[in-house]
Amino acid sequence: MAFQVSSELIKKVTLLINTKDDNALTTVLAEVHFADLAEILEELQLTEATYLVRLLDSQKTSEALMELEEDFREDILEKLSAKEIAEELEEMDTDDAADVIAELPEERVENVISNIEDEQHAEYIVELLSYADNTAGALMAKELVKVKENWTVAGCVREMRQQAKNVTRVHSIYVVDMDGKLKGRLSLKDLLTAEAKSYIKDIYIPKVDYVTVDTEDEEVARIMQKYDLEAIPVVDMTNILVGRVTIDDIVDFIKDEAEKDYQLAAGISQDVEADDSILEHTRARLPWLILGLFGGLGSVFILEGFEEVMLNEKYRNLFFYTPLIAAMAGNVGVQSSAIIVQGLANHSVKGSLTKRLLKEIGLGLINGLALAILIIIFGTIMQYELAFSLTIATALMAVIIVAALIGTFVPIILDRRGIDPAIATGPFITTSNDIFGIFLFFYLAKLILGF
Amino acid sequence: MAFQVSSELIKKVTLLINTKDDNALTTVLAEVHFADLAEILEELQLTEATYLVRLLDSQKTSEALMELEEDFREDILEKLSAKEIAEELEEMDTDDAADVIAELPEERVENVISNIEDEQHAEYIVELLSYADNTAGALMAKELVKVKENWTVAGCVREMRQQAKNVTRVHSIYVVDMDGKLKGRLSLKDLLTAEAKSYIKDIYIPKVDYVTVDTEDEEVARIMQKYDLEAIPVVDMTNILVGRVTIDDIVDFIKDEAEKDYQLAAGISQDVEADDSILEHTRARLPWLILGLFGGLGSVFILEGFEEVMLNEKYRNLFFYTPLIAAMAGNVGVQSSAIIVQGLANHSVKGSLTKRLLKEIGLGLINGLALAILIIIFGTIMQYELAFSLTIATALMAVIIVAALIGTFVPIILDRRGIDPAIATGPFITTSNDIFGIFLFFYLAKLILGF
Repeated sequence: MAFQVSSELIKKVTLLINTKDDNALTTVLAEVHFADLAEILEELQLTEATYLVRLLDSQKTSEALMELEEDFREDILEKLSAKEIAEELEEMDTDDAADVIAELPEERVENVISNIEDEQHAEYIVELLSYADNTAGALMAKELVKVKENWTVAGCVREMRQQAKNVTRVHSIYVVDMDGKLKGRLSLKDLLTAEAKSYIKDIYIPKVDYVTVDTEDEEVARIMQKYDLEAIPVVDMTNILVGRVTIDDIVDFIKDEAEKDYQLAAGISQDVEADDSILEHTRARLPWLILGLFGGLGSVFILEGFEEVMLNEKYRNLFFYTPLIAAMAGNVGVQSSAIIVQGLANHSVKGSLTKRLLKEIGLGLINGLALAILIIIFGTIMQYELAFSLTIATALMAVIIVAALIGTFVPIILDRRGIDPAIATGPFITTSNDIFGIFLFFYLAKLILGF
Repeated sequence: MAFQVSSELIKKVTLLINTKDDNALTTVLAEVHFADLAEILEELQLTEATYLVRLLDSQKTSEALMELEEDFREDILEKLSAKEIAEELEEMDTDDAADVIAELPEERVENVISNIEDEQHAEYIVELLSYADNTAGALMAKELVKVKENWTVAGCVREMRQQAKNVTRVHSIYVVDMDGKLKGRLSLKDLLTAEAKSYIKDIYIPKVDYVTVDTEDEEVARIMQKYDLEAIPVVDMTNILVGRVTIDDIVDFIKDEAEKDYQLAAGISQDVEADDSILEHTRARLPWLILGLFGGLGSVFILEGFEEVMLNEKYRNLFFYTPLIAAMAGNVGVQSSAIIVQGLANHSVKGSLTKRLLKEIGLGLINGLALAILIIIFGTIMQYELAFSLTIATALMAVIIVAALIGTFVPIILDRRGIDPAIATGPFITTSNDIFGIFLFFYLAKLILGF
C-alpha cells in the first residue's frame, strides 16, 4: 500500500487545472484521501490550490484544509468569498471550524458566520469562540453522542442513528439526566451487548472522567494520557455536558508542546517555523542572543582581570584554552539540564537532592577524568610542561563538575518556584556556565601555577 | 474532579501494608484507577510495591504495571514468581504482555510463558516476540474484532459479543474473507445502523488503510497521524489480517521520538533517564564531550597562530572576546539548525535553497546589527578606541551570518544524504561554529586592524 503522493500525479493535476479540465480533475481526485489532497495542495501555486478547493466537494476539501500549514490555509481563505468559506466550515467539526474562524481577519468573521446555513452549527461555533484560549472549552468539539438515562436501549439506538450522522467517531456515548447534566457513559460495545428493552439508567457506567470548560489544555492532555482516554467529556460550571475533547487534538497538542520545548532549548522563545517572516524569527531569537552577548561581556571582564598572564610567556597559552573550557562547561550544563527537564516533565525525578548531587559529582568525575587524560596526552604530544597540562586537566575536571551541578539544580529550583524549567536548557545555562567555567579555570590555574 | 494522588492516601497505604491489613487495603484501593495505582506504587519502597501487586487483583495491577517506569517494573517482576508474572500477563493485551516479556531476563522467559494458562494468549505473545524490533509486527496487538464477509449483521453481532470481551476498545471491525485475508472494515456505528438481515459483504467499506508486519514503526506513526487513524490493521505477506496498532501506542511513540530529538540536541546520544545508572549516562554523554574537546583543541591551534597579538598592548584585548564570539556563533547555529530540523521533520521546508540562503543572511544582518550596536555602546562606555569596537562589531556580524548559514545548511545536507538531521543541532553545530567563529574573528580583526 503506497502512502505517497507521486510527482506524476502533481504534474497531471497542475496540467488539468491549467487546461481547466474540471471533469478529468474530479475523476482523478475522486479516490484521493483528504490528507493526500492536502499534500497535493501544498505543492501547487496559490491560485491553482484555490481553484481546486473551489472545484472539489467541500466534504473533502474542508478536511484537506485542516491539514495545511496555517499560513497557506489563510492565503487560500483570503481568496475565497464569505459564502465559499461558510460552505467549507459547514463540513468541518465545530472545533476545527472555530479554529479556522479564529484565523480569519476580524472584519470577515461576522459575514462568514452569517453565511453558514446550518444555524445550530453556526451557534456552536460562536459558542466555542467564546472560550478562553488554552482551555478545554477552546479545545473541545460540540459533536458527541448523548442519551438520556430514562431511555430504553432500543429507543437509544434509534435516537443515536440520528446523532451519530454528525459525529465522525463515536468513542463513548454520554449519559445525561433530564437537565443535560453528565451522569455517566456507555460504550458502543455495551450498547451492542445489552437487551433492547433494558433502560439506560440500569446499564450505564456512572464513573466517568470529565473536565470543565475552563480546565487548562495542558491538564486535559495530562489527564487523557495518564488515564489512556480517547475522548473526555467537558461540562460547564453547572455540570451540564457541553462538548468533548478527542485524542487527535491531544496528539497535535503533544507534538506542539514537544516542539516548543525543543525550540526553547535551542534559544527560540516563540513558536516559529522555517517559513515564517524574518521579523517573527528576529523576535523569537534576538532576546536570547542579547542574553548571550551580555554573558560574553561578563567573560570579557573576567579575562581582563587576568591580563598580566599574557606577559608571562610560560602561561599565556592559558588564553588559548578559554573557548575549550567555555564549550565544555556549556555542553555539560546542557546535557545535565536536558535530562532533568525531561525528568521533571515526566514526573520521574524522584529521591533526595543529596543523592542526585552525589550522582552528578560522580558522573562529572568520570567524564572529567576521561577528558583530563586526553588533555594530558595532547599536552605530551605538544611538549607542554607537565605542570601546565595538569593544571588544564584539573581545572577542566572542576569546571565539568560545577557545570553539571548548575545544569542539574537550576531547572529543579526553577521548577520549585513554578517557572517552566525548559527555559533553563539552552542559552541560559550555556551563558552562565561559560562565565562560571572561565572564571573557575583562571582562578584554579592561578592557584596551582602561582602566577 | 481531582486527578491527584494525595500524600495522605500514600501514607495510609504504607501503614496498611506494614500492618498487613489486607482487607482494609483492598477496600481503600478498590475504586482507585490503575493509573493512580501506578503513581502510588512509584511512591512506595520496592518490597511494599511488590506486596501490593501480589495482593490486588491482576486485572488492575497488570494495567498499573504497564504505567510504571521500566526499571521499577523490572525490579518488581524480579521479586515475583513465574506463576505470578504469568497471572499479570494473562490480564494484559498481547502487545503489552510481549513488551513485558522482552524485558525479562532470558532464562525466565520460557518458564513464565509456560505458566500462562490461556494457550491462545501465550501463542499470540510468542508470535509477537518473533517480529523484528521497530516494525508494525512488534508494535501491534493481536486483540481485534473481525467478521467474515458472508455473515449477516445479526450473526455478526452475536459473534462480536464474544470477541469484544477481550478487546478494550473496538475502534473498527475488520472484514475478512474465508481465508482470513483483509477485505475492508466496518465501524460499530455502521453495524448499529444496518438492517439485522443484511450481509456484511453488502455494507462493509472496502477501502481500508493497512500496514504489513514489517512496516517500520516510524512509518506506521506517520501514516496514522497523516490519515488521522485511531487504529490500523496489520497484515502478513499474504494479506492475512494478523493484528492492529492503536493510537495509544502511537502517542507513546511520538513522545519517545520527541524526547530522543530533544536529547540529541542536548548532546545525549542514547535514551537515558534521570534515574539511570552513572555508566549509562557516561556512555550517552561522553562521546559528545570528546567531540567538544577536540573542537576546543582546534581553537587552541587557531589562537596559537595569533599569539603575537598578545604582545600588542592595543589589541591583545581581542583575546578577551573569544568566549563571546564562540558563544554567539554557537547560539546562532543552534537556533538556525533547530528551526530547519523541525521543518524537515514536518516536511514544511519548501522552496529553493537560494531563497533560504538570502533569508538567513537577512536574518543574520538584522540580529548582527542589533548586537553590533550594543557592542559599540559597550565599547564607548569602556572607552575603547572606536576602531577596536568597530572591528569587534563587524567581526561579530560576519560570524553571526556564517554561523546561521552553517546551522541552516548542515542539517539540509545531512538530510539529503539520508542522515538524521537532528544530530546537527547541539554539540556538532556548536563545536564547528566555535572553530569557524574564532578563526573568522581573528582573521577579520587582523585584516581591519592590520596587525
